[in-house]
Amino acid sequence: MNQISILSPASVANVVCGFDCLGFALSAPCDEMTMRLIADKKVRIVNRDDFNLPTEPEKNVAGAALLSMLQSLDGKFGFEVEITKHIKPGSGIGSSSASAAGAVVAANKLLNERFSKLKLVEFAMDGEKIASGDRHADNVAPCIFGGFTLVRSVNPLDVIALDFPPMFVTIIHPQIEIKTSEARKILPAQIPLKDAIRQWSNVGALVFGLQKGEYKIISRALEDFIVEPVRKSLIPKFDEIKNESLKAGALGGGISGSGPSIFMLSENLETARKVENVMQTIYEQTRIDFNIYVSEISTEGVKVRK
Amino acid sequence: MNQISILSPASVANVVCGFDCLGFALSAPCDEMTMRLIADKKVRIVNRDDFNLPTEPEKNVAGAALLSMLQSLDGKFGFEVEITKHIKPGSGIGSSSASAAGAVVAANKLLNERFSKLKLVEFAMDGEKIASGDRHADNVAPCIFGGFTLVRSVNPLDVIALDFPPMFVTIIHPQIEIKTSEARKILPAQIPLKDAIRQWSNVGALVFGLQKGEYKIISRALEDFIVEPVRKSLIPKFDEIKNESLKAGALGGGISGSGPSIFMLSENLETARKVENVMQTIYEQTRIDFNIYVSEISTEGVKVRK
Repeated sequence: MNQISILSPASVANVVCGFDCLGFALSAPCDEMTMRLIADKKVRIVNRDDFNLPTEPEKNVAGAALLSMLQSLDGKFGFEVEITKHIKPGSGIGSSSASAAGAVVAANKLLNERFSKLKLVEFAMDGEKIASGDRHADNVAPCIFGGFTLVRSVNPLDVIALDFPPMFVTIIHPQIEIKTSEARKILPAQIPLKDAIRQWSNVGALVFGLQKGEYKIISRALEDFIVEPVRKSLIPKFDEIKNESLKAGALGGGISGSGPSIFMLSENLETARKVENVMQTIYEQTRIDFNIYVSEISTEGVKVRK
Repeated sequence: MNQISILSPASVANVVCGFDCLGFALSAPCDEMTMRLIADKKVRIVNRDDFNLPTEPEKNVAGAALLSMLQSLDGKFGFEVEITKHIKPGSGIGSSSASAAGAVVAANKLLNERFSKLKLVEFAMDGEKIASGDRHADNVAPCIFGGFTLVRSVNPLDVIALDFPPMFVTIIHPQIEIKTSEARKILPAQIPLKDAIRQWSNVGALVFGLQKGEYKIISRALEDFIVEPVRKSLIPKFDEIKNESLKAGALGGGISGSGPSIFMLSENLETARKVENVMQTIYEQTRIDFNIYVSEISTEGVKVRK
């Protein structure tokens, strides 16, 4: 096999209390990629969409991840990848991660799964660095492992694939731009110990709830005392979306990644659809364009296209 | 039944990364209590040990917990309790919690289990307040629920009884005094966000490890970047005890409660005994008296004495 096509999913990082550690993969939207082995030890990028992303591999997220993989390989070969992105860059639902994770998973399949999932996360993080200036794993980990992941530590890298019950996600992507750098700048460098304690108690409870499939505990644990209070001001109608979604039956939710997308989790598809209606009604009152996605949390992550 | 005797166990709170939320009950040491229904609506304390604890119920931890319970009862009766404490006050292994939890569990048995465990924790917290000035639940919750507990929230009270694999605890209690108020004063009011993130990632991983019985993950998650670095200076030989215990095979551990006791967790009794030897050897080089306890994490909490 020297060619493969894959679908690489959007993902949600910074899952409420689990800022910088908890993330999950969606089943849609997905980027499409076709990866080929080529005879030169280099990476060639072909963009098949309108996002005007760089084609120089070292400036491209997928390219940088593949270059990182190539560096730890001896063979005289490289990769050509055709990319059709459907996940808009800057949406806060892991667009760059889909590129990085999709590229390394596809390449690894052409190499007969030479690398472990953990190693693939390492390569993909080198791609993420191009997008955000920072080697972070909270989106690429769920893309590669599938499902709900906890990044316990980045250095050394330690990723835990959590169990979780069936859950549906409704995500609204308002078409406004929030720069990751801006979203970072407003984070406090220091936080009150008492807020941190509430946050880690909730992280513990959320992991418990996910492991046991206890929706009520999951719902109670979906609180964020630290990041949401400062970042929500960047997102129009955040409080209204959240409050009305909860009234419609959502378990909880918050800012996806560093925004502007807002996600809400529901126990079943019916509720997720109600949340979709709620979000739509609220945003139709604004002059902001938006997309809404409804998706299951996907156990699969990057998948081969059939 | 108008009389019952119970054993109320020591407990460990502030389990490494789980400061102010994670705790577990030991099988030993235990306080002994005999509780009787009496005809007057009041609480009578009889101390059968040499600790000279107050006998005025409102100044006594067990007494205050029982008074709190009596307040939510209509009947014309009260409680007399004989207490033989074996857990030394100020040891950091939940001496006051054993009194408060033991008293309310015993009284509840005489009332045919009228109150839920969660409600008992509420009463016991009113007892804890006498000892520490603060209504906290991280020791009384494991005493009452048994095993390993997570206090997700104090107000409203939310206690989660975690699953956990067989584990053994070695605790050294150096006979020095650390006032809880002093141990609190040295805690920072503000902490770096980046340390908080590492801490809550570890709390999530620790809960996962406990739920799945994954000792390696438990071990990796037993890190504390926030409290241990400042409080360990109050406890002679802390680093040496910890490092040598880990070399002897312990999974991890840290300061029990607010000290001065140090606890280490092990996968089996044999390792816990090795850790006991390590602790003993180190403390014999000091002029400080000490006790060492080896115990299983008890699934039972307060138990009826047979």
